[in-house]
Order: sequence, then structure tokens, then C-alpha cells
Amino acid sequence: MSRTDAALAHLDAHLDAAMSRWMEWLRIPSVSAQPAHAADCRRAAEHARADLASMGFTAEVRETAGHPVVLASHPGPGTGKPGPRLLYYGHYDVQPADPLELWTSPPFEPVVVEGKNGKRVVARGAVDDKGQVSMWLAAFRAWYETTGTMPCPITVLIEGEEEVGSLNLAPFVIAHKKELAADIVVVSDTGMWDIDTPALTTSLRGLCYVEVKLTAANRDLHSGVYGGEALNPINALTRALGAIRDAKGRILVPGFYDNIRDISPRKANQWASLGFDEHEFLGDIGLSVPVGEQDRTPLERLWARPTCDINGIWGGYMGPGSKTVIPSEAFAKISFRLVPGQDPARVVENFKAFMHANVPADAKLDFTIFGLGEGLEIPTDSRFLAAAEKALAAEYGKPALLIGSGGSIPVVETFRKELGLDSVLMGFGLDDDQVHSPNEKFDLRCFHKGARSHIRLLGELAP
Amino acid sequence: MSRTDAALAHLDAHLDAAMSRWMEWLRIPSVSAQPAHAADCRRAAEHARADLASMGFTAEVRETAGHPVVLASHPGPGTGKPGPRLLYYGHYDVQPADPLELWTSPPFEPVVVEGKNGKRVVARGAVDDKGQVSMWLAAFRAWYETTGTMPCPITVLIEGEEEVGSLNLAPFVIAHKKELAADIVVVSDTGMWDIDTPALTTSLRGLCYVEVKLTAANRDLHSGVYGGEALNPINALTRALGAIRDAKGRILVPGFYDNIRDISPRKANQWASLGFDEHEFLGDIGLSVPVGEQDRTPLERLWARPTCDINGIWGGYMGPGSKTVIPSEAFAKISFRLVPGQDPARVVENFKAFMHANVPADAKLDFTIFGLGEGLEIPTDSRFLAAAEKALAAEYGKPALLIGSGGSIPVVETFRKELGLDSVLMGFGLDDDQVHSPNEKFDLRCFHKGARSHIRLLGELAP
Repeated sequence: MSRTDAALAHLDAHLDAAMSRWMEWLRIPSVSAQPAHAADCRRAAEHARADLASMGFTAEVRETAGHPVVLASHPGPGTGKPGPRLLYYGHYDVQPADPLELWTSPPFEPVVVEGKNGKRVVARGAVDDKGQVSMWLAAFRAWYETTGTMPCPITVLIEGEEEVGSLNLAPFVIAHKKELAADIVVVSDTGMWDIDTPALTTSLRGLCYVEVKLTAANRDLHSGVYGGEALNPINALTRALGAIRDAKGRILVPGFYDNIRDISPRKANQWASLGFDEHEFLGDIGLSVPVGEQDRTPLERLWARPTCDINGIWGGYMGPGSKTVIPSEAFAKISFRLVPGQDPARVVENFKAFMHANVPADAKLDFTIFGLGEGLEIPTDSRFLAAAEKALAAEYGKPALLIGSGGSIPVVETFRKELGLDSVLMGFGLDDDQVHSPNEKFDLRCFHKGARSHIRLLGELAP
Repeated sequence: MSRTDAALAHLDAHLDAAMSRWMEWLRIPSVSAQPAHAADCRRAAEHARADLASMGFTAEVRETAGHPVVLASHPGPGTGKPGPRLLYYGHYDVQPADPLELWTSPPFEPVVVEGKNGKRVVARGAVDDKGQVSMWLAAFRAWYETTGTMPCPITVLIEGEEEVGSLNLAPFVIAHKKELAADIVVVSDTGMWDIDTPALTTSLRGLCYVEVKLTAANRDLHSGVYGGEALNPINALTRALGAIRDAKGRILVPGFYDNIRDISPRKANQWASLGFDEHEFLGDIGLSVPVGEQDRTPLERLWARPTCDINGIWGGYMGPGSKTVIPSEAFAKISFRLVPGQDPARVVENFKAFMHANVPADAKLDFTIFGLGEGLEIPTDSRFLAAAEKALAAEYGKPALLIGSGGSIPVVETFRKELGLDSVLMGFGLDDDQVHSPNEKFDLRCFHKGARSHIRLLGELAP
């Protein structure tokens, strides 16, 4: 029996224990966006630290200007050739759980229920990213318990601010370049093509996130007394935000599309061959008509073209019934998904100028930036990607697809820029996982085969 | 000495007693919005009933589905020609007093303090509407004590739900048309031009109030996974609402301006002569540029032109920091102030059609209507308005201004529609009375001269 087979057998025999550790982690409401959960974030970090320490890692919870990170390292077997140095990255923080009333079970009391693919775990963070991190932690344990060590030198970095823009991670990475030195980064925070078809993600969109506050009068006003004369900040805000996109889905912020390259013909052919069913994709969420640029293919719109989404808006009277108020302020949160070529700082500046140009003279605008991440492309010809393709093919009995992702993992760009490292993005989420939504879930089959794939990847990379 | 002069002299000699009755009424916290004050509302009704009964009125507290009303009648002198039948309307209920900490004295312990116009009474309801009703009750008493009767047949209707929408008043009026039969309604719930310049309000704007719910996907979505393909309800709602008004302040809902007549040249001249200072009006609230139709005068925009204000909006993530959600729903509350000629039901239908035409095919729209009131113009050539003009000119030594109001008094429309009656809106409030705010006050000079004006009006109308 090979070392990999022994580790696989160990995982299969101890799957319940791996699930228990994962579900225990899910019970900690580590919502990074909400200050009230700061202590929970620290508890979630400590949970991961203890798990790593119990597998022979030197593991610490390290401070940042925000929520702490977990930093751990294992020297590997220490005999013979050391093998490549692997940096595993993940995050222990989760999105807020609201709206709570739409959850069928409490978001921080994970439950195992039956779904169309068999058992699934339902909880906030079930997949994103505690579930996916728990897969590679389970793979480490299988290797540790069967060999007493790790097959390669491994460093682990688990942060607590991914869901709020990873603002403090880049400074941490820059300040700890030596400890984080490695040959490749491994990340599980992406998805499969479908439950039977593994995928490796080779492009990611970046993200700018901006909150806008529009202030009009110096106090709330009665719309009977002032209506017709006084600036209404909600009217002004909707007018400016409503002008961002034209009827053909094109974003009208000046300079927004500057320096974007079209995808390569090779990639275009590859994506065309995927047989993406837009009708089914939209039908699953109750929609039928795509909203993005009409002259692009669906996968371009999702993976290779930038977007603008208003993620939140509020102002004035939001209670039952009617109140004839002209409020003094209105607010919105706006995010742009970016693709390679776009400069996040310039996008934000252009957006600010666009807003100033589209509100009346009396409107005062304040902007708060919550994130600035570039779009990213990963080379498809590295030996690490080849190892991951081999591991996935062995586990699933068919080749992994090389896909794009519309989401953002800003830290991947940080690793490239600051440490000179590419990333292998090997994730096991599914489209119906309800990431960031009520009733987030992770199918047990994905978790199990994901952990097995990670065991195989370590076997492929071991010297 | 004429009967009017005798009544005026009696009021002057007994002003303290009139003030005492008024202040005693103010001590009853008749807050209609708060169920805990239901008994206080009934006490306030009983206070008015007893006052009217002591002046020879047949006076009763009558039940409605909500707080009771006071209904009282006096047959008039009963000899000679009866004179016109007058229906006095007012309300005994008041707005909640919070925020309590901003009051300089307890809101239901009225005090007399010195202000820039001499003595004033400070209390919740000081002017709105107990103070203004107390003026005409004092006028009745002066006539009663000097003549033993009323100069005309008088009916009094004092309701207790004006501050919560008068929902039970129209059914009461419809059910008691015979008892309420009259020739004219007299209302004191409006304002003067300034403390030296009386005013009669001859136009009121109506109000349509609509809540819109826009539903897109069947659940909240991750903007990384779905951005570019999935309809975002906030983007769609802001796009549609943002298209309501053009850059020149004109409302683009089709048919919105149908059947609106321009104000008469006489009214235009009158309003032009008022010397309204738009710069000061806007400067007081921290603004400088009017938002309504640019080709209209400020007073037209405030009194004679319809508006559209978004009074509330909400959707998606409204907490601290960032959440990259594409929500499934977004909401807004929109109100239109209407002017004579506009049909509220048609405005709402046209607005619905406008919204449907301005959202993508996948957007589902739901509308909830919270109010449909027409704009109203009071004929300026009636003998009743002429009598009020004469009374005010005699009291103030200068003619009353005929002004508009941008707000709505729905009951005035109810009287017109159900009883076929016009109203004389003769009010004595000032802009700085802090109506609905902490430290509501009524200047004693306004109260005294207001009561004297009501005595004179009765004298003008008496046969």
C-alpha cells in the first residue's frame, strides 16, 4: 500500500472525526464584519491553531491591525529531499448570517441533513471557507496519523478578514515574507464544475467596494412643507446610481473598460467547450434574462468582464405604513468586480467623479473604501497545476476542467505581488451551496472527495 | 356698542380664564398614536364636551372604531333669520412628545414663558390643535356670556385621530351626514404669514403614497458567482426611480401633469407680492438650489405644483463594512404631492406603468397604496371667505394674504366630497411654533388675536 493509499484509507475510516472538528468550528460565529463578534473571530483562530498544533505544526495566533491570523509551519519529513515548500491559505471568518428569518436552522448550529446529493452540512461557513479549509486539515491529519509527519514542508496562513476585504493581510504578508517563503500557494475557496466534475480555477475577478453617503438638508424635513424645493437625498442617490449602467448592460463610469484585454482564443475555445447552460444557471435562481453586457458570452460575463452591483441601500423611513419625510441622508454600498488590466484605485476615482457629476450641487458625498483588489490570471503550464490535475483525475476518474471564477480572492494577488508565488486554486464548492446566503451548505460528498484530493495532491508533490 | 364689540371686550377682560381652560386641556396627554394614552384621549374629548355643554351646546362624546369624537350643536339664537350653519372642525389628539430629553419643560405641564413675541405657552399641543381650537371655543364663550346664545347655528366636530391619519373620521362623517349638515366648515389648523400678517389658506396639495417591492432572484446571491448575469433588484430599482425626474425637475411619469391648470393671474400676482425669500427658506435648512420644476416660481413649486419624493428606500446589506450580496428584494416608499386636476388613482396607475416599463423583464413589482388624496382649491369668491377676510382685516389692520399650503388636510377633502362643503382655513400658527417637535409653543398674541378674529368672523356671519 502506497503512503497516499494509506492516508486515504485512514481518512475514510475517520471521516466522522474530521466532520466533528469541522462542525465544532462552524459553531463559532466568526462574523468579521460585526465588531460584536471580535472575540468569536479570535476563538475561531484559536480553534484552527490548536488543530494544527496537534499535528506537529508550530502554530500561533498572530496579531494584525484587525482580526488575528493563524500562522503555522511544519518542516516536513526532515530526511532525504525536502520537496517543494507549500503555503496553504484559507480564512476562518464568515459573512453575516442575516436575514436570519430565512434560515431553516440556526446559522451557527450546524446540522447534517439529506439533500439531492446525499448528506450535507448546513451552517454559515459550511463551505466558505471553514468547510474547504477543514478538507485540507483532514488531509494533513491523515498524512500525520499514518506517517507521523507531513510529506513536504508546509506553512499555513488562515486569516480572519477575507469577508471584509483582507485589508490587514497584505501588511502582514509583507512583514513576514521570510516565514511565508514557499514554492506554491494552495487555496480551496473556489468551486467544482459540478458534483462529478472537478475544476481548477485559473482566473479570478478583483473587487472594489465603496460605501457612499449622500447628505442633503441639515435635518429631516416634512415633504408637505418642503417638497418641490428641498433636495431629497434618496431621489438624488437613485438618480446617480441608476445612471451607472445603460440598457445594454454596459457600465457608464468613464474609463471603466480601459486596458481590459479580451480573453485568448484558446481560452475562448476551452470555455465554449464547457457547454455552460445559461438558461439552467439563471432558471435555478428564478431568472431568465442576463443583465450584463449583451455582446459577450455568458461565461465572459461571469468570469472575464467587470460588473457593478449595488449590494445595499438605505435611507429615510423604512417602517410600516407611511411617513412623509424628506430625510437628510441616504446611503448605498456599491461593488465592482474587476478583471486583469483594470486598476482598482483608478476605478474608484472614476466612480467618485461619476457620482459628483451626477448629483445636484447641494448634495454632499462621502465615500468609504472597503476593498481594492485586482483581477488575476494564473499560468496553466506549471508543475504544481499539473500535480493538482493528476490528483483530481485520480480521485474523480476524469480530467479537471480549467475554469474562471467571477469571485475575488484578493490575497492571491498579494501572494503573487509580494511573495512571487502562484496559487493552485483547487476548490470543491457547488453552485447551489448558497454561499453568503441563508442556509449555506456543503455536500458531504464534496467534503470527503475534496479531502481525498488534497491527500492525493500531497502525494503527488512529495519527493 | 355692537354685539361683536361687546364680545371682544368680554374676551379681553376674561383672557386669563380662556388661557386656564386651554392649559388645563394641554395637561391631558392625548397622544393618539400610543395605546397607553387611550384613556387620556377620552379625557381630552370629555374636557371639550364639558366646555361646549357649559355654553348651551348639546354635546356628546361619540364612539368610532378608534378614539372617540366630540359632536356638539347649538341651534343659534332661534329668533329671526337663523343665519348660515357653521361646522367647526378641530382635533384634540397630539403627536408623541419624544424625544423627551430635548424639551426644556415637561411636554404635558404647560408653562407661560417669555419669547421674542412676548408671552408664549410651551406644551405638546400648545398650537396643534388644542391651542387653535381653544381660540374658537373662547370666541364662542365671549358670544355666549354676552348674548346668552350663539350668533348662528353651530355644529362642532373635534376628532382624536388627526395625527394618525384620521382613518375613522370619513366613516363617521358618512354615517352622520344629517347631523353634520352645514353651509361652511371653519378650521383653524394652518398658519399666518407672519405674526403681524394674517392669512387664509386657499389651496392644499393632495397626497399619493405608494410602497414598491421589487423582487429579482429567488434568493440572495454572491456577487462574485452571479455578478454580470443575475438581475440585481437594487440596481433595477435605482434605475427606475432615478428616471422619474429629469435634470430640470420635471416628473417623467406619463400623464403626470394632465389636467393641471396654471394658477390664475390674480393668484400669481398675489403670490408674487408676498416677497417670499427662497434664499432664506433654503438657507435655513442648509441648501441653496431648488430641485423642482425650474420654469416655476418658488411658491408655485411649494403650493401649486406636484412633487415626487422618495421617503424611504432599503435593500441588501445595511450593516457596517462590506457584504458582496446580490439581494433578492429591494423596497422604496414614494409619495406624490398632488394639485387640483390630478386624479390620485390615475397618478398611481401611471406610476405603476412607468415602473413596469423601466425595470427588466425578470423584475417582479408589488405595490402597496397608503393614501390617495386629491389636491384642493378653495373658491376665493365665496361670501364665507369674504367674511373671514373682513374679520382679519379688522383685527390686524391690514388685509389677510391668500396663501397656499404644500401639505394636506385630508378631512377638508372629506367634507367637500361627503358633505358638499367648502372650508375656511383660518389659522394662527407661526413657522417657528415647533409643531410635532420638542418645545411646541403658541404665542399668546396669536392666541388672543386669533380668538378675537373668530369673534369677528361670527359677527360677520350673524344675520
